[in-house]
Amino acid sequence: MITDLQIADQPDPLRHCREAFDLPDGILYMNGNSLGPLPHAARDAVAKAVSDEWGKGLIRSWNTADWYSLPSTTGAKIAPLIGAKAHEVICADTVSINIFKLAAAAVKMRPGRHVILTEAGNFPTDGYMLDGLADMLGKPFEVRRVAREDIEEHLTEEVALLLLTHVHYVSGAMFDMAAMSTAAHTVGALTLWDLSHSTGAVPVALRQSGADFAVGCGYKYLNGGPGAPAFLYVSHEHLNALQQPLTGWFSHSAPFAFEDSYTPAADMRKCLTGTTGVLGMVALSAALDVWHGVNIIEVRKKSVDLSTLFIDLFESELAHHGFQLVTPRTQAERGSHVTFTHTNGYAIMQACIDAGVIGDFRAPNALRFGFAPLYQSYADIAVAVDRIKEVMEQSRWRHPDYQQKGAVT
Amino acid sequence: MITDLQIADQPDPLRHCREAFDLPDGILYMNGNSLGPLPHAARDAVAKAVSDEWGKGLIRSWNTADWYSLPSTTGAKIAPLIGAKAHEVICADTVSINIFKLAAAAVKMRPGRHVILTEAGNFPTDGYMLDGLADMLGKPFEVRRVAREDIEEHLTEEVALLLLTHVHYVSGAMFDMAAMSTAAHTVGALTLWDLSHSTGAVPVALRQSGADFAVGCGYKYLNGGPGAPAFLYVSHEHLNALQQPLTGWFSHSAPFAFEDSYTPAADMRKCLTGTTGVLGMVALSAALDVWHGVNIIEVRKKSVDLSTLFIDLFESELAHHGFQLVTPRTQAERGSHVTFTHTNGYAIMQACIDAGVIGDFRAPNALRFGFAPLYQSYADIAVAVDRIKEVMEQSRWRHPDYQQKGAVT
Repeated sequence: MITDLQIADQPDPLRHCREAFDLPDGILYMNGNSLGPLPHAARDAVAKAVSDEWGKGLIRSWNTADWYSLPSTTGAKIAPLIGAKAHEVICADTVSINIFKLAAAAVKMRPGRHVILTEAGNFPTDGYMLDGLADMLGKPFEVRRVAREDIEEHLTEEVALLLLTHVHYVSGAMFDMAAMSTAAHTVGALTLWDLSHSTGAVPVALRQSGADFAVGCGYKYLNGGPGAPAFLYVSHEHLNALQQPLTGWFSHSAPFAFEDSYTPAADMRKCLTGTTGVLGMVALSAALDVWHGVNIIEVRKKSVDLSTLFIDLFESELAHHGFQLVTPRTQAERGSHVTFTHTNGYAIMQACIDAGVIGDFRAPNALRFGFAPLYQSYADIAVAVDRIKEVMEQSRWRHPDYQQKGAVT
Repeated sequence: MITDLQIADQPDPLRHCREAFDLPDGILYMNGNSLGPLPHAARDAVAKAVSDEWGKGLIRSWNTADWYSLPSTTGAKIAPLIGAKAHEVICADTVSINIFKLAAAAVKMRPGRHVILTEAGNFPTDGYMLDGLADMLGKPFEVRRVAREDIEEHLTEEVALLLLTHVHYVSGAMFDMAAMSTAAHTVGALTLWDLSHSTGAVPVALRQSGADFAVGCGYKYLNGGPGAPAFLYVSHEHLNALQQPLTGWFSHSAPFAFEDSYTPAADMRKCLTGTTGVLGMVALSAALDVWHGVNIIEVRKKSVDLSTLFIDLFESELAHHGFQLVTPRTQAERGSHVTFTHTNGYAIMQACIDAGVIGDFRAPNALRFGFAPLYQSYADIAVAVDRIKEVMEQSRWRHPDYQQKGAVT
């Protein structure tokens, strides 16, 4: 059992980062893995983009405020967090759309292979986008979903692409990216990594791990705001050969030449599509400045310490309430969130949120708690567990208001 | 020649709408066809969404601020401007991406037909997206670009889909939507209309014209902000059969059931893809409230009056400077912008912008001026022409700063 004194004594080289965020008083926010909180810099940048750049600069701001470069400059800020070169990353569209672009491009680079392999129970949009792609390509293309432990044996020479989510959205289980990339390459398959639950919480070494392609999310640990733009990574070895199908004008080598014939940009802009959503991109770009000078190794160390403290306190205080830990206990095998299941998971999470501990519920029975070292303290974890304990011991979750009504939609 | 007195005397039932916008002093803004100016309501709504909904509400705002419904509620606000039912329109992604979704869906509804017909010299992204689609589908699919006057003769039983931009982005020439839709239907082809340069300036009667599908832009006459989300229309007769390929989780019938198997939503949400970009959508939604109580017939009347006044004054004052009108003189045949060509078009437009008349330049030689009845006055047009006249008579455009450097990129 860890004492309050021990918690307060933890050295925390990231403590000052909390000042960069606008966190509501009295809230223990453990859902930065779903929507990161508001950085002051993002609020200020959006206000400036609206009032000055849009309001006063009007159309001129595409040049004077350099809105055109935002996808590239924002991508370059993400690159060091994922072990990529600045010119290998660009921001655009959504994770879903970016998966379609890169999966389509990958399949085209492996003619004669018709299988896209992914994990059953992966975050659904990844598989749905692959289904849409396979349906468009027609038979014999197929998406093969297999259990996590069966992936390696399904890596055969039929496989064009292996799509994996680095850290699982429910369990938090983390793949060994280098090992899985090597296994895929051994049979000649390409790899596409979904970094939605990794970027900004776990050091990712795309280049070093031999990853071919990756996508990731702007609104989780990167704190870019609700529905922030996503990003794409293409290993520079593949950039020339890459042909993605959503060939909008922002991906053209000369968008303002207004030619009928399409020539892709020579750099990562070939992965753009239509006009950049400026307000969302400005928020993400400003939010990324919070990372300036932050060492992702220190972030990971604190993340592991926070999640370990949470598991220890949760189990010691709440052991007899019927929760089951589904996240790997081995620190190296998990990302930055921890999930317990409980048959009354939905109602318990609603009661926790009302008690100021904001995690989230994932159907059918998972309670998910995220750890974001930039703004969470060790003491926050202890307070959160105390509040969850009150919810359980006072049976507050039994209140009718907290019960699930009908199916989840 | 119209006198200043006549201009000042024009009755203008839309005059009060100007108060809804934050327009910089001294600027004659004639580029609302490219980026509409800032409505006060959009600035306020974005500030609230950032500080209160994101900052204080955090993840809870998906429910408490109903971010989930934004694509549908925002689409419903656009519906009356385009002659559609509220449930036939939804906001999402970009015009480019939405063209891909609907063109792919349309082709699938016309098995055995392999031609997508469009206009040569249409706004490039439309054709580029079709190229990307045809390339994915493989031979014998092809995109056929033909001159405007040759479109009808190319409507054959090979054609699956006719994609036309209702108002041409350079010339402002407007198609007869009902006539072209009928011509397409006569040979069994479907129609997809790009309303980027129509919506909010020209009354569009999608249902009445028999249009099958449409897309349109949020950041032009709808004033939704830079890179605002776009919209899609699907005629309700086609909704059930429609299968679009970008099947992200927001298009699922139960996104939060997190099922591996994909079931599309039964309504227009089947046209969504990934997570909604909330900040951009909030701006567009608020900007659309400016249209409350505005009669689009009055907007069209004033738009035609403004463009006619502009052509008359421009030609009477600037006739000897070598400009050529490329926009149809017949009022019913044009949309809400007017374009002149000039061999020194680039430099002239830069000098005009510096003189406070903001239009835009489209390569190789077009000067484009937009008319937005919500915030432009008749007097604005006269002042704008006076300033352009000064630019020409003082040869200000010859200044080295205004000359084009290298190719347009």
